[in-house]
Amino acid sequence: MSHPIIFDTDPGVDDAQAIAIALAHPEIELLGMTTTYGNVDITTATRNALLLGELAGQAIPVAQGAAAPLVKAKHPAPAFIHGENGLGNIELPPVTGQAISATAAQFIVNQVTARPGEITLVAVGPLGNLATALQLDPGIVTKVKQVVIMGGSVNEGGNVTPVAEANIFNDPHAAARVLTAGWPLTMVGLDATHRCVLRPSDMEAIAASQGRLGEVLAGSYAFYSDFYRGARGIDGCCPHDSCALAWLIEPELFTTARGHLTVITDGDAEGQTLFAPEGRPFIDDRWARTPLVEVCTGADGKAVVEWIVDTLK
Amino acid sequence: MSHPIIFDTDPGVDDAQAIAIALAHPEIELLGMTTTYGNVDITTATRNALLLGELAGQAIPVAQGAAAPLVKAKHPAPAFIHGENGLGNIELPPVTGQAISATAAQFIVNQVTARPGEITLVAVGPLGNLATALQLDPGIVTKVKQVVIMGGSVNEGGNVTPVAEANIFNDPHAAARVLTAGWPLTMVGLDATHRCVLRPSDMEAIAASQGRLGEVLAGSYAFYSDFYRGARGIDGCCPHDSCALAWLIEPELFTTARGHLTVITDGDAEGQTLFAPEGRPFIDDRWARTPLVEVCTGADGKAVVEWIVDTLK
Ligand SMILES: [Ca+2]
Ligand SMILES: [Ca+2]
Repeated sequence: MSHPIIFDTDPGVDDAQAIAIALAHPEIELLGMTTTYGNVDITTATRNALLLGELAGQAIPVAQGAAAPLVKAKHPAPAFIHGENGLGNIELPPVTGQAISATAAQFIVNQVTARPGEITLVAVGPLGNLATALQLDPGIVTKVKQVVIMGGSVNEGGNVTPVAEANIFNDPHAAARVLTAGWPLTMVGLDATHRCVLRPSDMEAIAASQGRLGEVLAGSYAFYSDFYRGARGIDGCCPHDSCALAWLIEPELFTTARGHLTVITDGDAEGQTLFAPEGRPFIDDRWARTPLVEVCTGADGKAVVEWIVDTLK
Repeated sequence: MSHPIIFDTDPGVDDAQAIAIALAHPEIELLGMTTTYGNVDITTATRNALLLGELAGQAIPVAQGAAAPLVKAKHPAPAFIHGENGLGNIELPPVTGQAISATAAQFIVNQVTARPGEITLVAVGPLGNLATALQLDPGIVTKVKQVVIMGGSVNEGGNVTPVAEANIFNDPHAAARVLTAGWPLTMVGLDATHRCVLRPSDMEAIAASQGRLGEVLAGSYAFYSDFYRGARGIDGCCPHDSCALAWLIEPELFTTARGHLTVITDGDAEGQTLFAPEGRPFIDDRWARTPLVEVCTGADGKAVVEWIVDTLK
């Protein structure tokens, strides 16, 4: 079975690896990439998306989108995680192509409308493009096949605040719109991605078999690893964004639960995703007002990493 | 070493057991009980505190306090957890004594001022009395020996909302004042108390050796167990409030971390306690603005339950 997907991304080291997977996996049909600010500014995100497609020798449309959050002021991206250029500050070859004229949101609406019931949106950055696609055409909620989000956290705590994951924190208002839109949605958050650690030996295996693209993935990985070694004390990286694709293709590697998500948009808990499991009673019913979605509560990390390496070898 | 304590409480089944421990343990000098609404209304809380002291044959002062939250509207207590009478709806003997004339907050200020550096405040209900004690005399922050709170949750999720523990949810504004007052404070929350499960056999051992008091503890426990069996699917109860005393006397049975607490007072995350570990960097420094405190991140549940049973046998 082939999955036609639109990949919404802010590349980003772990985005780059996920893009390589989307380009390589025989069961994924990559219709296009839509870009957002996040790990990097929007211009850099678009350049990186174009570059990664070109390095793989594929002509994938890239549509540029959000340069800033929907509502709140933009927080500067911390360059010490992904590097100034989003790919670990390694030297990058020039890009020959350019983004299409449609915006990210318009591209999503056009594609989903043209193939109702077929397309999966996989979003691994701040969720502004999906939110503005819903603004342009709320009817896409019934036309997408499904939506897979890398972002959020249920029991795992946050990675940029005590409780918030970066993609949700970067645009909590967009996340609130997207996670409660009522479309078939799965959230692959830190509860799953922190179970997965890609070791240097895994990356060597990938680099050796991906040509020029492999060099970029491995070089950027080395930079990203330095951050993980310092901040989390592990020798390796969590391949956050690749986990969204792993869930799409191999959902049995994850544990999931159904329930209601609420996104905090302001204050000290800004960017937190609250999860109320379906049917669990609380002191009042305010947490059950949002549509039911699926969240990943865990993952077989070793098997997910094996799937990533196998896909890219 | 003996610990002079004031026990702030909303009895409540698990409060009753903790009061029995405070009355029985040779290293605890129970100076008085201060009462708050919470598990029950304030009149019932005061009656139960008086009753438990009398059943143990001890003349312990009881000072009545908060009948409602500081700021928000009072949420009705769910009678199916602790029973209408707070002690599992078992038949209770009459009370002969009465509360002293000082309010809970005034009693706390008077006692702490009279014995600077000596007294530990152990609070196992909503935190209104401690907040109003700070209102009457902010200087008590340097005069208490320490403050031990049963409440809150760091990684464990909530018990009355997806993220909030009941004592904090019941009066989040009071909790925000008390948890960030800058006094030596330890939070014993669900991360620790959910590790501890008191089984029916444990309760039989306690009941057999506590006379009339034991009958009340065992009878109320049976009612409380029914709630746990239904809501959490376990045969036994979490002895939340006793854990605060276990930490006071046997801190080595717990794992702890130092850091900053922030309490959410409004919205969907109302009553949540956010914990920022000391020195851990986040996207900005807003979570480090509050004073350093200690939180329990886990417990040796089996050993804590053994300590409870040993204390009451
Ligand atoms: Ca990303
Ligand atoms: Ca209590």
